[in-house]
Amino acid sequence: MRYYQLREDGTPRLAVQTADGLFDLTAAKDRLQTLEDLFCAADITDRSIDDVTDDLLEDAVPLDAEVADGDALAAPVSSEIWAAGVTYRISEEARQAESDTPDMYIDVYESDRPEVFFKATPERTVDPEEPVGIRADSEWDVPEPELGVVLSDGDIVGYTVGNDMSSRSIEGENPLYLPQAKVYDKCCSIGPCVRSADSIEDPHDLEMWMTISRDGEVLYDDATNTGKMVRSVEELVDCYTAHNAVPDVAVLLTGTSLVPDESFTLEEGDEIEIGLEGIGTLSNTVVEV
Amino acid sequence: MRYYQLREDGTPRLAVQTADGLFDLTAAKDRLQTLEDLFCAADITDRSIDDVTDDLLEDAVPLDAEVADGDALAAPVSSEIWAAGVTYRISEEARQAESDTPDMYIDVYESDRPEVFFKATPERTVDPEEPVGIRADSEWDVPEPELGVVLSDGDIVGYTVGNDMSSRSIEGENPLYLPQAKVYDKCCSIGPCVRSADSIEDPHDLEMWMTISRDGEVLYDDATNTGKMVRSVEELVDCYTAHNAVPDVAVLLTGTSLVPDESFTLEEGDEIEIGLEGIGTLSNTVVEV
Amino acid sequence: MRYYQLREDGTPRLAVQTADGLFDLTAAKDRLQTLEDLFCAADITDRSIDDVTDDLLEDAVPLDAEVADGDALAAPVSSEIWAAGVTYRISEEARQAESDTPDMYIDVYESDRPEVFFKATPERTVDPEEPVGIRADSEWDVPEPELGVVLSDGDIVGYTVGNDMSSRSIEGENPLYLPQAKVYDKCCSIGPCVRSADSIEDPHDLEMWMTISRDGEVLYDDATNTGKMVRSVEELVDCYTAHNAVPDVAVLLTGTSLVPDESFTLEEGDEIEIGLEGIGTLSNTVVEV
Amino acid sequence: MRYYQLREDGTPRLAVQTADGLFDLTAAKDRLQTLEDLFCAADITDRSIDDVTDDLLEDAVPLDAEVADGDALAAPVSSEIWAAGVTYRISEEARQAESDTPDMYIDVYESDRPEVFFKATPERTVDPEEPVGIRADSEWDVPEPELGVVLSDGDIVGYTVGNDMSSRSIEGENPLYLPQAKVYDKCCSIGPCVRSADSIEDPHDLEMWMTISRDGEVLYDDATNTGKMVRSVEELVDCYTAHNAVPDVAVLLTGTSLVPDESFTLEEGDEIEIGLEGIGTLSNTVVEV
Repeated sequence: MRYYQLREDGTPRLAVQTADGLFDLTAAKDRLQTLEDLFCAADITDRSIDDVTDDLLEDAVPLDAEVADGDALAAPVSSEIWAAGVTYRISEEARQAESDTPDMYIDVYESDRPEVFFKATPERTVDPEEPVGIRADSEWDVPEPELGVVLSDGDIVGYTVGNDMSSRSIEGENPLYLPQAKVYDKCCSIGPCVRSADSIEDPHDLEMWMTISRDGEVLYDDATNTGKMVRSVEELVDCYTAHNAVPDVAVLLTGTSLVPDESFTLEEGDEIEIGLEGIGTLSNTVVEV
Repeated sequence: MRYYQLREDGTPRLAVQTADGLFDLTAAKDRLQTLEDLFCAADITDRSIDDVTDDLLEDAVPLDAEVADGDALAAPVSSEIWAAGVTYRISEEARQAESDTPDMYIDVYESDRPEVFFKATPERTVDPEEPVGIRADSEWDVPEPELGVVLSDGDIVGYTVGNDMSSRSIEGENPLYLPQAKVYDKCCSIGPCVRSADSIEDPHDLEMWMTISRDGEVLYDDATNTGKMVRSVEELVDCYTAHNAVPDVAVLLTGTSLVPDESFTLEEGDEIEIGLEGIGTLSNTVVEV
Repeated sequence: MRYYQLREDGTPRLAVQTADGLFDLTAAKDRLQTLEDLFCAADITDRSIDDVTDDLLEDAVPLDAEVADGDALAAPVSSEIWAAGVTYRISEEARQAESDTPDMYIDVYESDRPEVFFKATPERTVDPEEPVGIRADSEWDVPEPELGVVLSDGDIVGYTVGNDMSSRSIEGENPLYLPQAKVYDKCCSIGPCVRSADSIEDPHDLEMWMTISRDGEVLYDDATNTGKMVRSVEELVDCYTAHNAVPDVAVLLTGTSLVPDESFTLEEGDEIEIGLEGIGTLSNTVVEV
Repeated sequence: MRYYQLREDGTPRLAVQTADGLFDLTAAKDRLQTLEDLFCAADITDRSIDDVTDDLLEDAVPLDAEVADGDALAAPVSSEIWAAGVTYRISEEARQAESDTPDMYIDVYESDRPEVFFKATPERTVDPEEPVGIRADSEWDVPEPELGVVLSDGDIVGYTVGNDMSSRSIEGENPLYLPQAKVYDKCCSIGPCVRSADSIEDPHDLEMWMTISRDGEVLYDDATNTGKMVRSVEELVDCYTAHNAVPDVAVLLTGTSLVPDESFTLEEGDEIEIGLEGIGTLSNTVVEV
């Protein structure tokens, strides 16, 4: 099942997309207003989120499917977001081009330890359809389309689409500037929904694509498959959660393989669409921050 | 003035140390329970925190000075913490010893852009007297004593003492692992108080010292002065706040210059004391996480 | 000055009406989002709310005056509401007509102790322009237009307009049913603004009027003056706050003198307008609950 | 099962008493910190609270039984509390003695509509072992021992013991003063636990007793049975929840039948113990407010 967080006039509502349509779960249970509420109830009762939802569908109210594309759509969870890097082969080459010290990227491949880093607070994460940011002091800015793993109490409960906005010029100048290239105003977006882990057959075999348009013209359009990851989702999650204080709900983005080439940089007003097979398409425009 | 956050049975109280003693400000105003409350009132009324406090002292209740050392002492603010690196000369040499790619550290000195990074969430920050963490998967762990700048609405309103716990073995293995070396369970502590910016004559001329003891024996004892910083506090704050979504209250640690040599690593039970002239002494024990 | 609480897409903003127009105070200070924030800052700094506001007007952003009438208008404070009864002569006669035991109402006049009662939680209080409720199990329902006193830390800081919805049939059946006649779903509304106490010359000399319309026809239209109160505002506040646990912000409605006669009862869809000289007009429709 | 809310250093923990002892449920599930959390998970998954708990007992940690009597004991829920009056025959006689207008009490018996009223906010409710209040402006003060019904989403999920503190002198002076006699600082206490509705065979057949001691001497000691109620628990709950905006969790006290005679009034320092068969004993001292 796919879960959408709606928010109208500030009031949150949880909706679920099943084979039969889109349903308002908050209408079935007043207390079920956010995906976090569902995660919490499922955790305490040791059930899967889809299992809990199944029992509620009878009382849920059908919604127009387009609600899930509209203004009311919010980020599916409001949580700390981490990300992994150097997890796809293609990304390695791109990074070599950008950095004067490429060896460290190659070393990450060859090491047992993945690269994971703090990516965003909820306040720095924008809703679907909202503008993501490019730093005014950066010259080379790209979106990084990524499969997002959604964790409840440290366990994988779902998947989402993530946009890990990055300043390649700042990161490329010095690897010690990576946090500035990654963590800034409006640096991340996730959505449009969370697909339950139970309903994803294999997270390591999902088509992923990205298009970037400017003034109606497509400037970038490419696709890959999460099967090209050189780390497993579980391995990345283990690295994030080990020795860490992981909040009840958290998101880990798993790295990118779709990278516009060096001649491209984002500009204000650009439109980014990131799609993941079986999950959905995350759309954002671009604003300078 | 120096502000202490007390917390007894979960109830917060704000105390202030003046030349005349320690006073309970919450006794003067019920609504003034945290330093954040004081920052907020001062911000909205465009006054300094000391100025607001001055008017409240008449109704504040004297407290035993030892309260500010006891169990009731909490981190002075509960906020996002960032840190800066490579800001003292001595630190550079230490880093060269630890890393196979030392050039990047030298580059930071020569660059206009400082190194700032996301250090800790409130949940990863421990109170004074509480144990800070060393990662079980790390072999070389050190505290980093630092001057902490306290920001309200992006402006410098005070200073505190910070312990930026670091795994030098993980950071040294690959600079891309820096976030794992820095952001983990119990990775930070600040305190014991916040000294108002107005009452610090020059933050760039403060004695700073650290002692580390094990089983009653002092293993490390050294001192420096914040005057040895090669960046100004304002410059580091500018770097943190630019293009960023800084919360109402935030802390920026300004880098370290006191580094135990390579033969030393922290162990469970060690006692760390970090002192800053005119502010106070932050004490923590060590626990493996 | 008159303070309006706006709420767009769930985000609160505080606006103030001065002689020069309507201004967005949140634009001047991010942290000043609600009237409660202003009360808090004024309380901690021992200043009046108008005094704090005066200093902020330079940075406040002008708003269209009609904003204060629109969808974005919220109840000016979100707090516990109490009300007083039997405070106007006219109300006494009306009550005698309704009750089989009228002596108790007369006794309230002759007693030192006023009648004050718990009226509404924030969850039972509706915003201006939103529908107030009439109980489905009640036959005789009326609005009670009242001057509302706004308290911060127990002190009078402003005035608002209140609608103390009442089931006269339930109250009339037995005085022990008073709480059921008074405290129920959507039983109260306050607004449209709070006028600062400093800018009200005499709360005991304010014209108060009410009109009730159905299908465009005015069914009730009458006026009175708060000067007809037989208790002072201070006396009623003292009665409410004595021996009580009054929250930081609270509202006390001071009783009614405008009562539709026995032949009138509210119906779904009716429109109620309650005006108070120098404060504003509170409008609500009616819905059965 | 019986649920205890513990709170140590401000951190809440939920414990359950089964036939096998007292167990820490928060140790089994981090997110299960309050009884409200359990109610919420049970509501969303349409299970009983005992059923959810059963599955968690395997991972729960045994606690010393005395924990449930100690300082860490908090009110079992933090919610709006309503109360019912005139629900026991004995109470009627007592009320006739106190009031000049006793007919209204008799009328309540003969009417379909029970008397229910707003009793307390969480801020006016004290924990077990904490002092309840008597108003300094009252001459005749008594505790009212009552069976408390605990509601989740309007449904009965458990029972607790309640102390509905009352000023009989203020109530007796005029029935319109009832709210002042009932709603004031520290006017209520509930606890020590909530017994699940599923494990109470018949709430209308529970022994209830109260003792009041002063300086070690028992001044009042009497017992009754909830079977002497003239209304059913369901009837009272229906009256409270109809046409009302009932919060997710709420408590309804069901009236008293144990009343010290007219010669007795509470004094500061008195100790009150209220017991209910199968639930527990709620102890409070007395303080003037």
